[in-house]
Amino acid sequence: MDLETAIGNGCARDWETVDPKDIDPVRFAVIGLGWFTKGRALPALEASERCVPSVLVSGSAGKAQTLADDTDGAIRGITYDQFHDGVASDAYDAVYIVTPNALHLEYVETAAAQGKHVLCEKPMERSSERARELESVATSAGVELMIAYRMHTEPAVRRARELVEDGYVGTPMAVDGEMSQRLLDRINPDPDQWRLNEELAGGGALFDIGIYPLNTARFLLNMDPVAVTGTTSSTHDAFDDVDETVSFALRFPNSVTGRCYASHNARQASSITVTGTEGQVRVEPAFFQDQRRTLHVSRGDGRASIELDPVDQMLEEFDYFADRVRGSAELYPDGEHGIDDMEIMETIYEGAEGGRWISLK
Amino acid sequence: MDLETAIGNGCARDWETVDPKDIDPVRFAVIGLGWFTKGRALPALEASERCVPSVLVSGSAGKAQTLADDTDGAIRGITYDQFHDGVASDAYDAVYIVTPNALHLEYVETAAAQGKHVLCEKPMERSSERARELESVATSAGVELMIAYRMHTEPAVRRARELVEDGYVGTPMAVDGEMSQRLLDRINPDPDQWRLNEELAGGGALFDIGIYPLNTARFLLNMDPVAVTGTTSSTHDAFDDVDETVSFALRFPNSVTGRCYASHNARQASSITVTGTEGQVRVEPAFFQDQRRTLHVSRGDGRASIELDPVDQMLEEFDYFADRVRGSAELYPDGEHGIDDMEIMETIYEGAEGGRWISLK
Repeated sequence: MDLETAIGNGCARDWETVDPKDIDPVRFAVIGLGWFTKGRALPALEASERCVPSVLVSGSAGKAQTLADDTDGAIRGITYDQFHDGVASDAYDAVYIVTPNALHLEYVETAAAQGKHVLCEKPMERSSERARELESVATSAGVELMIAYRMHTEPAVRRARELVEDGYVGTPMAVDGEMSQRLLDRINPDPDQWRLNEELAGGGALFDIGIYPLNTARFLLNMDPVAVTGTTSSTHDAFDDVDETVSFALRFPNSVTGRCYASHNARQASSITVTGTEGQVRVEPAFFQDQRRTLHVSRGDGRASIELDPVDQMLEEFDYFADRVRGSAELYPDGEHGIDDMEIMETIYEGAEGGRWISLK
Repeated sequence: MDLETAIGNGCARDWETVDPKDIDPVRFAVIGLGWFTKGRALPALEASERCVPSVLVSGSAGKAQTLADDTDGAIRGITYDQFHDGVASDAYDAVYIVTPNALHLEYVETAAAQGKHVLCEKPMERSSERARELESVATSAGVELMIAYRMHTEPAVRRARELVEDGYVGTPMAVDGEMSQRLLDRINPDPDQWRLNEELAGGGALFDIGIYPLNTARFLLNMDPVAVTGTTSSTHDAFDDVDETVSFALRFPNSVTGRCYASHNARQASSITVTGTEGQVRVEPAFFQDQRRTLHVSRGDGRASIELDPVDQMLEEFDYFADRVRGSAELYPDGEHGIDDMEIMETIYEGAEGGRWISLK
């Protein structure tokens, strides 16, 4: 696909395989009702033609029911315990898990036992070991399992990927990515939030936001790293458990290299760039929601910056999941794909700890 | 300095300390008459009010004299041997050395013995050991020695540095840099060129172009790395002696990290970015000549891209050198500064070889 064709695609949903008119919407039990669910996930599910947020699950029945009363399509709010007990299980076809990382597994176990499909937030779990268990539970039960990488359905990233795949940049040589935000100052000042707790999160900036440049690099190149190293640091006391900042380097097959940065203590920044023998494709801003994406391309003597209309990234992701659940096309970011990130991230920590490059198995 | 003041400075030569009307121009012996000298250095010296390219030095007296006849201000063309013998040494005050890296030392030895000041291309020599010898020779002779880092007088880079220094980005957290070009395909197809010869060059992409993001990172942060690692690769047979591509990672004091990429086999790209707790400053394109520089800044919710008028980077560099030679202000990129880069680059190779992070002494 050349530049003109890719841009011509704009924000087209080239992944769509089924018409929403031909399918029953996927009814979701939404597990975990934090700010991300309220601000991002529920509005997207309400707007979707393919999905319905039918059951909301939280620690408090009252809180869940109050939110359900305010949510289009929601018929019931229940507690985590009630979810495990199968209360209202007739009212949903799938679960969307947006709890602390270390709790993903237990909800997948229950969902799989109920025969429900699973859309699970990234990172997949708190460790690769638990991620493997999670994948195995879902696979054994024969339910669909998707890890919620919203970059895979972000139009600017998809257009960049098409350009790379079609040879617009020549042979890919390098990938560079960054994602940073001031977590405590701008997002959530609570020093006791689960993201800072190693038991619940499994890791810090790398697990929470470093996974964006890492996974998007894999997605854009359609390659997985063969060796990694990194370095981590923290300046705030709240980050004594997990990394506040991570810098990591990757070696891919064919001498392709990557460099990524993620920090919970740097000004909001997000970009991903692929440089090849003939050109360069860059998405910036790339990872945060509600920002107008720009695709920066250069090749030969030419360069251009193309603005794409912003989409609701969560809506795209939910609709993609529904398309794969209701249709017969395969899910791309499946459990194995998610496990790979877990193993890569653990190896980055290991390399940072040991001050060396480590090959991936 | 805030954004408005820095931009207001535009391309102002804030380093100037002497008026060209008050000084005798610095007369140069230009040693090495390759394409860079003919296309870049001589035109800049001809245009300068502060410098004169009075003597041209090459392997062939005929070639040197022919070029001298065509060069404003040149009075004589001589051979390398004649230079060592002191022929025409009354006709220059300084030497500009633009030979293969491994020959820098011998010309500095002769220039120092003649009491001439030295402007020496980067990298300083083929090894840190020889660079130290070079520095010692110049210092013992009491002549000025400057390493030709043209980014130090590039207005866009200077404005970026002022912004970082003044806290515009808050506390610096990260630096990212890249420089790439297709050496064989676009610049010089000769597989026997000295840049590919380890004996003459000392290193490949890292020594030749990786030094730009490395040195500019040091310059922008006003900090030197404390540990580095890297990885190198080559795909073309011509690069069996030296690295065609290098990726390296740096740790600076105060948990600042850096990531750099340089390749002689990727599409032309050049940028340098500093990310801090409050903002980001990026120069892109950054390192190649004849390109209009853009300074990309962001802070809080704001972002802007400011185009600066392009300057002749070689003219700026020559004039800075003349200003320091004729005035009393200190040179910034002196021999010690150049030695630091040599040691960092050798340590990057060592880290790449051993697959580990290595602390700098």
